[in-house]
Amino acid sequence: MTEAVNSARKRVVIVGMGFGGMHAAKSLAGSHLEVILVDRTNYHLFQPLLYQVATAGLEKESIAYPVRALARSWYHMTFQMRQVTGLDLSAKKILTDSGELGYDYLILAGGSVTNYFGNAGVERHAFDLKRLPDAERLRNSILTTFEQAARETDPTRRRERLTFVVVGGGPTGVEFAGALAELIRYVFRKDYPSLNLSETRVLLLEAAPALLGAMPERLRRYAEKRLRSMGVEVRCNTLVADATPGEVRLGSGETIATQTLFWSAGVKAAPLAGLVPGEKGAGGRVVVTPELTLPGHDEVYLVGDMACVLRHGKPLPMLAPVAMQEGRHAARSIIRQERGESAEPFCYIDKGSMATIGRKSAVAVSFGLSFAGFTAWLVWLFLHLYYLIGFRNRIVVLLNWAWYYWFHERQVRLITSDGAGAADKRGI
Amino acid sequence: MTEAVNSARKRVVIVGMGFGGMHAAKSLAGSHLEVILVDRTNYHLFQPLLYQVATAGLEKESIAYPVRALARSWYHMTFQMRQVTGLDLSAKKILTDSGELGYDYLILAGGSVTNYFGNAGVERHAFDLKRLPDAERLRNSILTTFEQAARETDPTRRRERLTFVVVGGGPTGVEFAGALAELIRYVFRKDYPSLNLSETRVLLLEAAPALLGAMPERLRRYAEKRLRSMGVEVRCNTLVADATPGEVRLGSGETIATQTLFWSAGVKAAPLAGLVPGEKGAGGRVVVTPELTLPGHDEVYLVGDMACVLRHGKPLPMLAPVAMQEGRHAARSIIRQERGESAEPFCYIDKGSMATIGRKSAVAVSFGLSFAGFTAWLVWLFLHLYYLIGFRNRIVVLLNWAWYYWFHERQVRLITSDGAGAADKRGI
Repeated sequence: MTEAVNSARKRVVIVGMGFGGMHAAKSLAGSHLEVILVDRTNYHLFQPLLYQVATAGLEKESIAYPVRALARSWYHMTFQMRQVTGLDLSAKKILTDSGELGYDYLILAGGSVTNYFGNAGVERHAFDLKRLPDAERLRNSILTTFEQAARETDPTRRRERLTFVVVGGGPTGVEFAGALAELIRYVFRKDYPSLNLSETRVLLLEAAPALLGAMPERLRRYAEKRLRSMGVEVRCNTLVADATPGEVRLGSGETIATQTLFWSAGVKAAPLAGLVPGEKGAGGRVVVTPELTLPGHDEVYLVGDMACVLRHGKPLPMLAPVAMQEGRHAARSIIRQERGESAEPFCYIDKGSMATIGRKSAVAVSFGLSFAGFTAWLVWLFLHLYYLIGFRNRIVVLLNWAWYYWFHERQVRLITSDGAGAADKRGI
Repeated sequence: MTEAVNSARKRVVIVGMGFGGMHAAKSLAGSHLEVILVDRTNYHLFQPLLYQVATAGLEKESIAYPVRALARSWYHMTFQMRQVTGLDLSAKKILTDSGELGYDYLILAGGSVTNYFGNAGVERHAFDLKRLPDAERLRNSILTTFEQAARETDPTRRRERLTFVVVGGGPTGVEFAGALAELIRYVFRKDYPSLNLSETRVLLLEAAPALLGAMPERLRRYAEKRLRSMGVEVRCNTLVADATPGEVRLGSGETIATQTLFWSAGVKAAPLAGLVPGEKGAGGRVVVTPELTLPGHDEVYLVGDMACVLRHGKPLPMLAPVAMQEGRHAARSIIRQERGESAEPFCYIDKGSMATIGRKSAVAVSFGLSFAGFTAWLVWLFLHLYYLIGFRNRIVVLLNWAWYYWFHERQVRLITSDGAGAADKRGI
């Protein structure tokens, strides 16, 4: 099936419905261009809260929103659930698992995948958090290891099940380690009265000398101190060399017996970037012009984690705010091009970054100011609710947070794998 | 691992945390008996709303509740997530996948599974709704067939994808067919503007001469009329002979091309019943004494769908209210036995039954009175909210219903299978 471009109206195809693609689409609403949204899933995923799904704090449905519901609220937009398999830039069409699709303008926003840096042992045995099923799989595994530990009489095997190794001291690793420590401290202590939870270990390993490397030193120290007070063993300057079932081996040669290895130590451009010709930057990101277009193709834009955009000689970080601003810029540039104007270079406005550590504390830096503690946590909470799509989702998430805040309860602690379980990384 | 009975306090082991087991446990709270709850999942599932999860109306987490959260609110109760593999009635212990467990009293409440009546083709190709992952799998499949239909240019294959065959005109079949018809009519009509939804067919097949056989004739006629007005093709006196991928063959020899066959035409006792010695009734249910005990073992109770309890010479139906009353009766009988009194025969109080057909209509019969329409639907709504466990769950469910009622929106229309998908019945 080939869908030719309708000559009456120019067609924009947007591939990827993450933050970059979605904000590009939103900015094109009402532009009188035909917009086709393409993704291999049928929902926009709010990735920053995946770690809360993995730690039984939220149901996975509350952080996803159907693309079709978005598309129908924006004029002239349609959605096609497809997987992109190739690009034909000269013929201006994308190749997909169900036919070709022509375009006048193309916005590629395929995002990123976990980077294991070629470590096959880690890739095989570690959990990661990029997609919605990842989070449910990790939650099922955490709950299952506790159920197994509760009936395990051998102390060595029990300790192995109660040891959780988190690799990567960036925001995801810090947030996940904090949420897991709290899950154990507040919820599992009540749920598993027969278990001695002092046998539980949560280790947070970071290769660099400090956690949250992009943050000011005061916040880095605060985060580390808070995590330690919650019982997380923070180890900086620590590399992971390999993983086997039941064991993680560090660069120092030390081994840690564990059933749960969580990897958040790196991301790289999604495989879609490999289909794009031209120069690649670190992590396989496509080097783009200052206008965010593919060199030589000013009708092809790349936004978000896939695009390598330099600022002061360094690539912009792979973060949601960057993707959102780039998506909006690409949309506005297309509208300018349609008016016969030339595209302008992209200018990133760094509004800051943040990470939550626990029930009442977070760290945030914004326009040169840094916050830590309860205020930062409140800001984190409202910003995340604001950016979450869908009013119903916001209510459900707020309800879950209120429940947890007041009652120390996380109600989504369900083991929902059905035993057929080939999809589960540890066969649980 | 063998756990011997603690001699200080008599131990009750309850196997199965469905309606029967849970109500037995609740009635034993505060009884000073040691109670151990056993299930192979870690949650109580509110099965009557599974069909709403399958039709994108509810997230699956909102109809499940962690057993550990229940157990810790009841004194002297613990939960063990185990699968029962055998019974040793003379030694008074159950055998499980992780060791043996002794008991003084045993309540078996393993529930039921889908009965395909030996039809291997149907069993292989049909969806059913008994467990939580079944519902998500069916939802994923329904949404995926619509996505496929939206890009399918061949009219025959498109019609095959848009044809849904529901087998069984009991409450589950009626409720599922109604909810699916409404999902198409209210939600998909907006979501898939390019699809001609008059190509969509929802067929409800029933072997008997009428739907909802247990209901009075007025309600049966009302339900059938309502379903027809919603576009459901109701066919009574229709048997399904076989199923292959993409086709259902009827007893008449007629074939229907479909990607989705949903089977709710029968249930039978769970495999646990096969481990119990003695006489079996229809559907493999264990014939019990009027006191609900296993003949010859007045310390072993059977409740719910597994137990064949005769009233006026006919077995009681496999319904939640029956299981709940039997569970409570078993618990009270054990307390009586502990006091040295003898167990009393079980007496079922039939409070009625109901089925919802659509957004504003249901049928209900109670104490000889029958209701149809909006009033019955309101009663259905409040009873289901009442019996749902967990205040947070009730709010989330009510929120979803309100959303649907006012905005005709079902927000959980997410395809959440991750492609690894070996667990999915159709490999989606």
